[in-house]
Amino acid sequence: MSGDTRDIQALIDLMARLPGLGPRSARRAVLHLIRKRAQLMTPLADALRDVAAGVRDCLNCGNVSTTEVCAICTSEKRETGEICVVEDVADLWAMERSGVFRGRYHVLGGTLSALDAVGPDELGIPRLLDRLDREGVQEVILALAVTVEGQTTAHYIADQMTGRDIAVTSLAQGVPVGGELDYLDDGTIGAALRARKSF
Amino acid sequence: MSGDTRDIQALIDLMARLPGLGPRSARRAVLHLIRKRAQLMTPLADALRDVAAGVRDCLNCGNVSTTEVCAICTSEKRETGEICVVEDVADLWAMERSGVFRGRYHVLGGTLSALDAVGPDELGIPRLLDRLDREGVQEVILALAVTVEGQTTAHYIADQMTGRDIAVTSLAQGVPVGGELDYLDDGTIGAALRARKSF
Ligand SMILES: [Zn+2]
Ligand SMILES: [Zn+2]
Repeated sequence: MSGDTRDIQALIDLMARLPGLGPRSARRAVLHLIRKRAQLMTPLADALRDVAAGVRDCLNCGNVSTTEVCAICTSEKRETGEICVVEDVADLWAMERSGVFRGRYHVLGGTLSALDAVGPDELGIPRLLDRLDREGVQEVILALAVTVEGQTTAHYIADQMTGRDIAVTSLAQGVPVGGELDYLDDGTIGAALRARKSF
Repeated sequence: MSGDTRDIQALIDLMARLPGLGPRSARRAVLHLIRKRAQLMTPLADALRDVAAGVRDCLNCGNVSTTEVCAICTSEKRETGEICVVEDVADLWAMERSGVFRGRYHVLGGTLSALDAVGPDELGIPRLLDRLDREGVQEVILALAVTVEGQTTAHYIADQMTGRDIAVTSLAQGVPVGGELDYLDDGTIGAALRARKSF
């Protein structure tokens, strides 16, 4: 790569930092972009800039949003009595694609981990508890992965609900052990949600 | 995906059009970018914009460049007596990574194809012939894939050299049949170049 292509190399290096892209696929992607300058490269630059400038975490639920509070939290079409707790936004998107859940979300942004010093505060659990009264929540659905970390976190949250008149359920049938929501097909998620059981 | 995330969805759709990325990996890439807004997303937007604004085809060789004539064509460190003919810029990059070739390039941008109406003009072959005298070329190395299309194109170019005092060689040993240069490791390309034979 020669002098005048230094910015092309810089672009390749940035692309190679995306998950799923290595140096070779980053090079191919950049050549493809160069060939499709008007149709793809410039629109992609604009879209990245717009999202980078506008995106933030929803103050209420932690979803990515371009407004202070996200569209799901403000939508009048969503049930206010149900909160589905997910580990990250990818899981929220997977739930939304299934089209089955009509309530709201709470995005933890991770799981409890003593090793990584991730405690309840880091996961926004106090914020979740605040929402329960404020939003008149009757059911909290724990849609966390069936992993040690996911279930430890689920149990911790369920414990915080003790003594409140709130049903705590978890996704049941259909979530494979060790499986992450984002990798499940929409039908599996729908079935798991419909068959949710008391936690 | 809800109202306020329409620009996030637009970004995912654009990312999914990159080679090697499908809808799922595009979603993962976008979430990764959102998490790394300052370190990755904004720099990537800037890099894409810079390259989109500055990149063009080198008027001499067809390489991607940010100047009218690319750095390889203008470099005083490159031999002017040798031109390596490649199908596309990915192949030029692969040759450069091998570090063995010190001459210049000619990027065809494709192979001859009656079906797709790709003739010599579309591949810049007249421009290649113009360069021979102007640059005092003594050797043309045909670094084209060992495919029917690649070899048809190579033979056509070799025929145009008849009657000129120019050696026409091709990459030999090490280029697997049906193999594209961009998929070869650097050592293989180096070996093929060193062992090039008269065409
Ligand atoms: Zn929200
Ligand atoms: Zn050039």
